[in-house]
Amino acid sequence: MLSEFSLIDRFFARRASRARADSTVALGIGDDCALLAPPAGETLAISTDMLVEGRHFFADVDPYALGHKALAVNLSDLAAMGAQPQAFTLAFSLPRADEAWLAAFSDGLFDMAERFGCELIGGDTTGGPLNLCITVFGSVPAQVALRRDAAKPGDDIWISGTLGDARAGLGVQRNEWTASAADTATFRRALERPEPRIALGVELRGLAHAALDLSDGLAGDLLHILERSQMNATVDVDALPRSAALARLPRDVQLRCTAAGGDDYELCFTAPATARAAIEKVGDKLAVPVTRIGTIGALESAAAAPAIAWHDASGTPLTLTLQGFDHFHAD
Amino acid sequence: MLSEFSLIDRFFARRASRARADSTVALGIGDDCALLAPPAGETLAISTDMLVEGRHFFADVDPYALGHKALAVNLSDLAAMGAQPQAFTLAFSLPRADEAWLAAFSDGLFDMAERFGCELIGGDTTGGPLNLCITVFGSVPAQVALRRDAAKPGDDIWISGTLGDARAGLGVQRNEWTASAADTATFRRALERPEPRIALGVELRGLAHAALDLSDGLAGDLLHILERSQMNATVDVDALPRSAALARLPRDVQLRCTAAGGDDYELCFTAPATARAAIEKVGDKLAVPVTRIGTIGALESAAAAPAIAWHDASGTPLTLTLQGFDHFHAD
Repeated sequence: MLSEFSLIDRFFARRASRARADSTVALGIGDDCALLAPPAGETLAISTDMLVEGRHFFADVDPYALGHKALAVNLSDLAAMGAQPQAFTLAFSLPRADEAWLAAFSDGLFDMAERFGCELIGGDTTGGPLNLCITVFGSVPAQVALRRDAAKPGDDIWISGTLGDARAGLGVQRNEWTASAADTATFRRALERPEPRIALGVELRGLAHAALDLSDGLAGDLLHILERSQMNATVDVDALPRSAALARLPRDVQLRCTAAGGDDYELCFTAPATARAAIEKVGDKLAVPVTRIGTIGALESAAAAPAIAWHDASGTPLTLTLQGFDHFHAD
Repeated sequence: MLSEFSLIDRFFARRASRARADSTVALGIGDDCALLAPPAGETLAISTDMLVEGRHFFADVDPYALGHKALAVNLSDLAAMGAQPQAFTLAFSLPRADEAWLAAFSDGLFDMAERFGCELIGGDTTGGPLNLCITVFGSVPAQVALRRDAAKPGDDIWISGTLGDARAGLGVQRNEWTASAADTATFRRALERPEPRIALGVELRGLAHAALDLSDGLAGDLLHILERSQMNATVDVDALPRSAALARLPRDVQLRCTAAGGDDYELCFTAPATARAAIEKVGDKLAVPVTRIGTIGALESAAAAPAIAWHDASGTPLTLTLQGFDHFHAD
C-alpha cells in the first residue's frame, strides 16, 4: 500500500504548502504536530465532522462535490460562531487509491479551502471503508463569538439565504414530488454545493446575540438555541425564505422543506430589534438575503420546556408533524 | 438511531464537562464550535489520527485498551513536540451502540484524558463501520517546540524507555517466536497500553534539537528526522535499549524488534553533547530511562540521500534487511 499512499500524500501535500502571507500557521504538514496560534487577542474556534459513505453520501457521489461539501459543512460551523477560517486537518480512510477520484476530490476540497483562506495543516490517510474526518480552525475574539446560549427575550429570529432546496432535491431523487429540469438542477446544486456563510458570520459579531448553522432542519436546530438559552420562540411559517424553485412546489411541501428539511447550511441567528437596520445593511453589502421569521420569548416558568410556537401569515397556530404542518387543534 | 446516539452522547458528554481549574477552554461541547486559546505567548500543537477496525485493531479488541491507546498515540505526538496536552476532539462511527462496549471504551479514553489534563471539547458520532478519529491540542512556545528538522552534526541520538516490546508481542501472537507467560504479558501490555512521554517532552524543551515519537519503528522514523534535517546518522544496534523480557529472546529477534518494530511510542531525539548531563538528570527525575544510541553527521554532499549507518558494539557495520540485520558485505 506504500506506493498508493505516497500518491495520496502527493495529492494533498501539493496544495497544503501554499501558505498565505497572513498565515497564523507556524508549522504545517510533515512534523508530529502542526503549530497554530490565533491572532493576538483572539481564540480558536474548533469543529470536527465525520462523513461516512452510505450514510452522508453515496458511493457514486461526484468526488469534486464531496470534497466541496466535506469542507463546506465544517466551515459552516465556523460561520455560525462568527469565526474567520484559518486551517483544517483531514483524516480519511479509503478502500483503494483511485487517481482520478482523488484528483477530483482534492480539487473540490482545495478550491473551497483556497476561497476561504483555510490551510491544510495536517492529516492522516489509511486503508478502510470510505470515511472522511475534517477538523476546522477559525479565529474569533471570544467575547463576540456567536454562541447558542445567548438568545434574549424580544430578539428577532433571522435566517440567511433560503431554506428547503436541499430537502426538495432529496424529495425529487426519492420521487416524493416532481419538479422541472431547471428546478431540479437548482435543488441538486443546493444539496451538493452548500455555501458556508463566513462573511455574514464575521459581520454579525457584536450585532447578533445567538447563532447556529442549519444542518438538521430549522425545527430541530432552532430548538438547540432555545434549549441552550432557556427561551421560547414563535415562528411564522409563511415568512420562511424560499427560492422561486421551491415556491413552485405545493404549499405543504414548501412548509415541510423550509421548516423541517436539512442540509441547508444557512445561519439562524437572533438579534435585538435595535439591530434590524444594521443587519439589513450587512445583508445588502454581502448580497446575502436576511429574513426575519419570528421572535424569541421568555419561558412561562423555570420548569417549562423550551418550544417553538408555529403560526401562518394570518396568525393561525399550526402544529408541525412528521408529515408537515396541521392546523392546530386541541385533541 | 436517535435513542442509541443519545446514549453515546451521554457516555461522552458526562465526563467532557469536568473542566480543569486552569482550563484554556473558553467553550466546550454543545455549540457549533469549541473555543480554545493557548496560554499567552504559546502556540497550539495539533495532531490528528484515524484508527480503523481490521487495520489498527481487531474487532474483538478490549474496548478499555482501545480507548486508552486511541488517545495515547495522539498524546505521543504532542510529547514529540514538547507540548503540554490541553484538549481533544473525538469523531467516531460505529455499527451499533453497545452499552457495555461504550462504557469500557469511554473509561479507557477518559482515564487517559484525565491523567494528562486533556479535556474533550467536541466531537461527532455517526453510524458506520468502526472508525475513530481523534484530534489533540497541546500548547508549547513556538521557539522551543521539538521539530523534526532541527538535528545538527555531532548531536547525540537518544531514545526514551525501551524499544521492541510491542513488536515482540505481535510476534508471539503470530507464532513467530515464543516467550514465557510473564514475558508475553509484558509484551502485550506494551502493545495495548503505550505511555505517552509527555513530561519528558516538556522537559526536553531547550535541551533537545530534534524529536519525534516512534510509531513505525526506529529505522523508518529516524529517517524522517534525517530527511527533514538533511543529515546522516550512525547507530549502535547493541545500544538500543530493551526490556529484560525482550533480552531473553534470540539476539536477531531483539535487533529486529528494537530497530524495526513499531508501536513503541517512545521519543527519539537529538541533542548536543553539552546537554548529556542535563538529559540524564531529567531521565532520573522522571524515572524514564534515556539512552544514547548514536550520532548525527553531516551529509557527504548536498546531493547525497540521508541514511542510517548501523553497526554493532564492536564497530562492525551491519545492514538492515526485511528479515533483520546481516553483516555488511559489498556484493
